[in-house]
Amino acid sequence: MGNCMDGIRNLSMIILFGVFVRYNEESDTHWVDYRKENNITSDIENDYYFRYPSFQDVHVMIFVGFGFLMTFLKRYSFGAVGFNFLVAAFGIQWALLMQGWFHSLDYTDGKIKIGIENLINADFCVAGCLIAYGAVLGKVSPVQLLVMTLFGVTLFAVEEYIILNVLHAKDAGGSMVIHTFGAYYGLSISWVLYRPNLDKSKHLNGSVYHSDVFAMIGTLFLWMFWPSFNSAIADHGDGQHRAAINTYLALASTVLTTVAMSSLFEKTGKLDMVHIQNSTLAGGVAVGTAAEFMLSPYGSLIVGFFCGIISTLGYIYFSPFLEEKLKIQDTCGIHNLHAMPGVIGGIVGAISAAAATNTVYGDLGLENTFDFTGPFAKRVPTIQGGYQAAGLCVALCFGIGGGIFVGLVLKLPIWGDPADENCFDDEIYWEVRQAQNTNWPLSSILSSGCFLSVETFVQCNHLNLTIV
Amino acid sequence: MGNCMDGIRNLSMIILFGVFVRYNEESDTHWVDYRKENNITSDIENDYYFRYPSFQDVHVMIFVGFGFLMTFLKRYSFGAVGFNFLVAAFGIQWALLMQGWFHSLDYTDGKIKIGIENLINADFCVAGCLIAYGAVLGKVSPVQLLVMTLFGVTLFAVEEYIILNVLHAKDAGGSMVIHTFGAYYGLSISWVLYRPNLDKSKHLNGSVYHSDVFAMIGTLFLWMFWPSFNSAIADHGDGQHRAAINTYLALASTVLTTVAMSSLFEKTGKLDMVHIQNSTLAGGVAVGTAAEFMLSPYGSLIVGFFCGIISTLGYIYFSPFLEEKLKIQDTCGIHNLHAMPGVIGGIVGAISAAAATNTVYGDLGLENTFDFTGPFAKRVPTIQGGYQAAGLCVALCFGIGGGIFVGLVLKLPIWGDPADENCFDDEIYWEVRQAQNTNWPLSSILSSGCFLSVETFVQCNHLNLTIV
Amino acid sequence: MGNCMDGIRNLSMIILFGVFVRYNEESDTHWVDYRKENNITSDIENDYYFRYPSFQDVHVMIFVGFGFLMTFLKRYSFGAVGFNFLVAAFGIQWALLMQGWFHSLDYTDGKIKIGIENLINADFCVAGCLIAYGAVLGKVSPVQLLVMTLFGVTLFAVEEYIILNVLHAKDAGGSMVIHTFGAYYGLSISWVLYRPNLDKSKHLNGSVYHSDVFAMIGTLFLWMFWPSFNSAIADHGDGQHRAAINTYLALASTVLTTVAMSSLFEKTGKLDMVHIQNSTLAGGVAVGTAAEFMLSPYGSLIVGFFCGIISTLGYIYFSPFLEEKLKIQDTCGIHNLHAMPGVIGGIVGAISAAAATNTVYGDLGLENTFDFTGPFAKRVPTIQGGYQAAGLCVALCFGIGGGIFVGLVLKLPIWGDPADENCFDDEIYWEVRQAQNTNWPLSSILSSGCFLSVETFVQCNHLNLTIV
Repeated sequence: MGNCMDGIRNLSMIILFGVFVRYNEESDTHWVDYRKENNITSDIENDYYFRYPSFQDVHVMIFVGFGFLMTFLKRYSFGAVGFNFLVAAFGIQWALLMQGWFHSLDYTDGKIKIGIENLINADFCVAGCLIAYGAVLGKVSPVQLLVMTLFGVTLFAVEEYIILNVLHAKDAGGSMVIHTFGAYYGLSISWVLYRPNLDKSKHLNGSVYHSDVFAMIGTLFLWMFWPSFNSAIADHGDGQHRAAINTYLALASTVLTTVAMSSLFEKTGKLDMVHIQNSTLAGGVAVGTAAEFMLSPYGSLIVGFFCGIISTLGYIYFSPFLEEKLKIQDTCGIHNLHAMPGVIGGIVGAISAAAATNTVYGDLGLENTFDFTGPFAKRVPTIQGGYQAAGLCVALCFGIGGGIFVGLVLKLPIWGDPADENCFDDEIYWEVRQAQNTNWPLSSILSSGCFLSVETFVQCNHLNLTIV
Repeated sequence: MGNCMDGIRNLSMIILFGVFVRYNEESDTHWVDYRKENNITSDIENDYYFRYPSFQDVHVMIFVGFGFLMTFLKRYSFGAVGFNFLVAAFGIQWALLMQGWFHSLDYTDGKIKIGIENLINADFCVAGCLIAYGAVLGKVSPVQLLVMTLFGVTLFAVEEYIILNVLHAKDAGGSMVIHTFGAYYGLSISWVLYRPNLDKSKHLNGSVYHSDVFAMIGTLFLWMFWPSFNSAIADHGDGQHRAAINTYLALASTVLTTVAMSSLFEKTGKLDMVHIQNSTLAGGVAVGTAAEFMLSPYGSLIVGFFCGIISTLGYIYFSPFLEEKLKIQDTCGIHNLHAMPGVIGGIVGAISAAAATNTVYGDLGLENTFDFTGPFAKRVPTIQGGYQAAGLCVALCFGIGGGIFVGLVLKLPIWGDPADENCFDDEIYWEVRQAQNTNWPLSSILSSGCFLSVETFVQCNHLNLTIV
Repeated sequence: MGNCMDGIRNLSMIILFGVFVRYNEESDTHWVDYRKENNITSDIENDYYFRYPSFQDVHVMIFVGFGFLMTFLKRYSFGAVGFNFLVAAFGIQWALLMQGWFHSLDYTDGKIKIGIENLINADFCVAGCLIAYGAVLGKVSPVQLLVMTLFGVTLFAVEEYIILNVLHAKDAGGSMVIHTFGAYYGLSISWVLYRPNLDKSKHLNGSVYHSDVFAMIGTLFLWMFWPSFNSAIADHGDGQHRAAINTYLALASTVLTTVAMSSLFEKTGKLDMVHIQNSTLAGGVAVGTAAEFMLSPYGSLIVGFFCGIISTLGYIYFSPFLEEKLKIQDTCGIHNLHAMPGVIGGIVGAISAAAATNTVYGDLGLENTFDFTGPFAKRVPTIQGGYQAAGLCVALCFGIGGGIFVGLVLKLPIWGDPADENCFDDEIYWEVRQAQNTNWPLSSILSSGCFLSVETFVQCNHLNLTIV
């Protein structure tokens, strides 16, 4: 069934693109005429050159960052990186259409006109769905993931339209639009899909040494490129510049508090890779909304400082609580990495918008930063703060409401989800190669550097394999 | 012998660079004078800023992308990533010279003038050779690889000159010049070097769990940065912009059809990592030639759609046929990833060039996109389509002809190629560390997370190791 | 104690940033006014667009490059990539302050004004400390690393100020300021902390197959992005352009000589991953100072050629000598990768500066490249060469002197350093997951692809585990 769906989905996508999607004036061959008409002196002023480096960084975050971050499970690395790949590739196409209808529709000819900024926004939109994937990692089928993404992208486009266009809230790095929405969407789905007997696959719900190292690839690419994420669609010039600086600082600060908390609150005083892989990123989430504001460097450090604490403590104390009391099984702990920091980010954004003054921003600067133009020309910072807060509520409502609805859809017994004892196991959906009978010389075995788990011996024994 | 060759090659390279290679006007300290003379208002109009971000992405594709894509073999990861590194580093130097003589020779002083575009083109040239490496992975010595690269780069520079300059075909992303040429070059070499007894190392010609995850690093960096590959040397402004969009869309589409095909045509209905690692990239190959044309977004989706199907079916049905009937052993399946999609790309390019109209492109846009200037001022799209098709034939001829010639050279028994039973084994060319006798506590062993292959037990038994 | 320190450090950082650090005119909302006042025609002339792509590449080198390069040890990958992360995140904050006081202090209001160039310089500063980490990898506690970084960054800021501002030496890629200083700083610390009984953990001081592949991720990202490193803070326009070209060429050349030397001088004629992982990078180090000079393409090749030889021979002959005779235990061989090439880079820089002529550079070009303006307007190339050499001496003195001092501080028995038998072992500082008792079917075991080390059998035997 999945395959038929794939085919139909693919064909519909092509038809919809054929009907609706065209190049915009900066990616069309008519750019050369457009330049002349608008007195643009150089090709370098094409939006492409303002945004392409950030776009590629965001692209890496979506595919390598999110994908490898989830490889930490010992036998679900194919699913982590592979399904992430599938979901993202599907999602960006659907997002180009959905976001296009809301944001880039040219009313003169009814076409969606796309350029580099649309590609970035499609990646952003998909980020919300991949965050949600983190909550249900290992417990859903690829078809369920595609359904999650289909609805997720649609909901995203609507809440984004309400928050950014109707409420005119600012959210450059998507603390509200992406992280809050995505996290509560995923958590709500996970709540509806609660599995009381998940213990049956407990032995696979953990990492091994090298899978933890693979996960660090994801962590680091997310961490390093987060300044690009938060600045990718910020205003040209100082907007992008400032967003990058704020994010850089918040993230640096988060790493220090995460490490401190991790060793302080672990019984053994040792560091836990789970925290290093995840909580170190919380500052980037929380500084998203305010990244292009005059948050000031120390403001960014403060945001990062608290998020490192909250996120790490979330992993230690709150995740077990969520699972036992609220019946939310959150494989990757997205509540600690995206939900709480996302909400904090929305609040920080609202406060710093409300506190904006002409002295700090300059008259023109204030107008530019908050786009107090057109129908919003008369809005003042304090009012803007209120609308920012309203935006946060919208994101929460869409996340929770949408998640519960989609969760119920996914509960239908038609999607081929894995049995409890097969969760977190690549064998269900992937060909895992059989080791060939090897004729290697002894030296090869000696040098292989792998070490034996004693349980395996015992198990082999049970299976009546005669050794010796 | 290899070492003497290395030394001589290195020294000759230095001498040739000393005689021939200089900075161009944009990388020379005289740029400041050049700017003034040409009324260039800002340093940002230096070609460096148009192309450097794409260059670095291409660089990552060459070294990490191709290198890690080939790490999928269980015991040939050093060879994959290490020889890829060696070949590429040698190739880019030789390519700067060869391509320089054909494309960047300043006839006033007989010097090759290099800038950022030359670095990108050198990386492109090497890509052709690395594609060829994929066909012979694990079956040739490093010296053979260097010989392949020496001839490959030379052939590449000539065919590129014929296709781009003489025929004046367009090929921004190199579907013909890079992929078609490189793939048939490699396949022809592999055909000449056919090993009837390759079965002897069959046990090593496959992946293990973590080697498949390493390969995904290569896949993803290739996939993510392919829009940079296809746009790196496209026209400033809308050309680069459009090439990036087209490639982004074609690749997204390919992922969906690849996944659908993989699970549909596998007997078990499971996904195969081989397809996910390779076929997902076919759309980027096939959209290369037409990337900067007005292919339109849905056109890109269609190209990606079909390439995902063809490439995946190629792995399932065509690769075994190639090996059994045509005696072509293609380790990485480059026929499915580069050869077929490359040819498709050439055809798509020819058709879309022939179909170009002034209405769609605009008068100036048409002239700019196809460079209908100077001696080619009178060429029209339909004629251009014919020359594009001619370009594809040239690429095929150079690939097949050159490959057979170089294959015969490599068949000489002087290059130290591995015996059949040593293929796909790093031990032959690399120091592989012996595991030390460890004195770890039991807990370490318990936590190591590695699991035992039962054959190894049996094998140890044969070796008369007494266990227990 | 470490945790209290972490807390205090974090809070002091926030307070210091609050008192001192502000946005500069290009990242402040007043940029829009600044543009108008200074007749800057486009946002694209914001320094952000000149440097952001290079910045992100440098960022990747610091966190993924250095981090993964050190994952080669079989059981210290968490420490390699995790402590690298911690140290760098702490260091960049401290560096922004220290370098800010010396370089970016606005005397009108006593504030440090930061922009993208400060972020790059902070990353550079941290690079010095991470190089030093390479010498002591596996033998120090995280608290010791933080102390090393605290002092290291401080010393760096001072020596950088003396070399670049007082002596007015040029050092775009930091051969002297970063590599020479960082390497001798680390080697001196390692010398003071000499462990005569390090043999006790000898069994862990080596690689396994997959840890060597992980390390190649680090190597390649360093190698590929080194052109960005050396050009990141070079002059706009031709300066950045030329620095990238020179570095690209030097690195390509180094790979070839490294491979040749490795197989020539190894007894077995096989390649050694240690050389491929490290020596291939030496050319980038050595071309750092002269990268923005008119070194000419063949000059870059020559530098790379010799550094590949020297660095590889260093690993084979000099490292054992350092350890046995000079009592310097250098885990990663930074003497071969950073110290010797760094000194060579300083010398190459001095010679090529002294040899600069108006003919080659052009009058304006010479002035621009060496900044012969203001108080240095009368300096001539030969004199500049002398100051470059003086700069190298300053870097050496600060490295060795500072390293001995900090080494003595770290020798105090209060920092929780690991016992000799616990060196190179993640278990000391990290939670390493225990493998769960698995109930996998036989097929899973068969497919796991891991192979048994025979010593483990014997060891299991000693532990009286009954097998069969």
